[in-house]
Amino acid sequence: MPLWKVYHPVGAYSAEDKRGLAERITALYSRLPKFYVGVVFQEVAEDAFFIGGQPAKNFVRIWVDHIARTLPTPEMRKWWIEQCDGALAPYIRDRGFDWEFHIDETSFELWSIQGIRPPLANSADEKRWIAENRPSPLTGA
Amino acid sequence: MPLWKVYHPVGAYSAEDKRGLAERITALYSRLPKFYVGVVFQEVAEDAFFIGGQPAKNFVRIWVDHIARTLPTPEMRKWWIEQCDGALAPYIRDRGFDWEFHIDETSFELWSIQGIRPPLANSADEKRWIAENRPSPLTGA
Amino acid sequence: MPLWKVYHPVGAYSAEDKRGLAERITALYSRLPKFYVGVVFQEVAEDAFFIGGQPAKNFVRIWVDHIARTLPTPEMRKWWIEQCDGALAPYIRDRGFDWEFHIDETSFELWSIQGIRPPLANSADEKRWIAENRPSPLTGA
Repeated sequence: MPLWKVYHPVGAYSAEDKRGLAERITALYSRLPKFYVGVVFQEVAEDAFFIGGQPAKNFVRIWVDHIARTLPTPEMRKWWIEQCDGALAPYIRDRGFDWEFHIDETSFELWSIQGIRPPLANSADEKRWIAENRPSPLTGA
Repeated sequence: MPLWKVYHPVGAYSAEDKRGLAERITALYSRLPKFYVGVVFQEVAEDAFFIGGQPAKNFVRIWVDHIARTLPTPEMRKWWIEQCDGALAPYIRDRGFDWEFHIDETSFELWSIQGIRPPLANSADEKRWIAENRPSPLTGA
Repeated sequence: MPLWKVYHPVGAYSAEDKRGLAERITALYSRLPKFYVGVVFQEVAEDAFFIGGQPAKNFVRIWVDHIARTLPTPEMRKWWIEQCDGALAPYIRDRGFDWEFHIDETSFELWSIQGIRPPLANSADEKRWIAENRPSPLTGA
């Protein structure tokens, strides 16, 4: 959690761009272990990418799965979407791309990292995972 | 919303085929702004694509996320699946491919286009987005 | 159902490896028609794949959609995740890769195979689909 999938035009981003954007996305989740944040970029050729039935020459389409946390209120969902748009802006809006993203929330209990079902939010185990930035056996409660 | 991801065998579709199928998919959503409809095609080599543990030489596998609308009743879900199968038929069934698709419904509130959380269904803002086929600042209610 | 998507480093798996892993994944679902199980492998270059903002050189990231069945209790969810980790181990853990996977559960009614909405769990139709390992017209109830 989270997993971000970024569909973008061929050649839209250099290796350095992708790293920069991945760092900005990772920074959004400052309360989580950094290694929870996965980002996969995928180039899509113009003849395989359509928005409204038209070839998408200039479009970045992102989908996200959230697993570790849910956003329980309308206010938090609104706030979060604004945070995401802010994080993306230097690599998308400010470069003249069009864009869209959406987020799904999936089950905390159907998730495994390194053979371990991750610790509960705000638990001592999670704090240790954050501090060490790697998974380790859970000590309980 | 919606995002369609189409996994297909290498060389199954020409650029024109992909455009034709994307247009048919887009036409399914005639009540929505056209630009809501995203379609991404992805070729998958035979050695990377398995159905039932066997290489999928002739299979089209599609997944879809719906965001702007939900299908609230069993009857509507049944009807919608039939509409989708009808839209796909000329490029899948009628060409002798095997196929499967499934749809997930994700949160309306965790969605952003061009930095704007899209307008409510059937609102004046949505009607303008449909008429203009582009996002524009919301005017409210 | 299910659809497994496996993101892995370039060159991590031979064709034979991918087939072997797909077979192990398929075997997890022994109560379902084999052809329900789809697996798509995708190589991701190091400069397009990030975990915690760092290039993922050695990481296998998997997401899964479950459609035909849900896992209704915490105990079953825990058990299932352990089964999955066991199935993956020879091709991931035992080869020294890091990994993460998560599963979403999507609507049984928003699903179609070969133009047919699949039969109910444990129905006579499903039993026939299992026995014949192919979809066929439903006979009812």
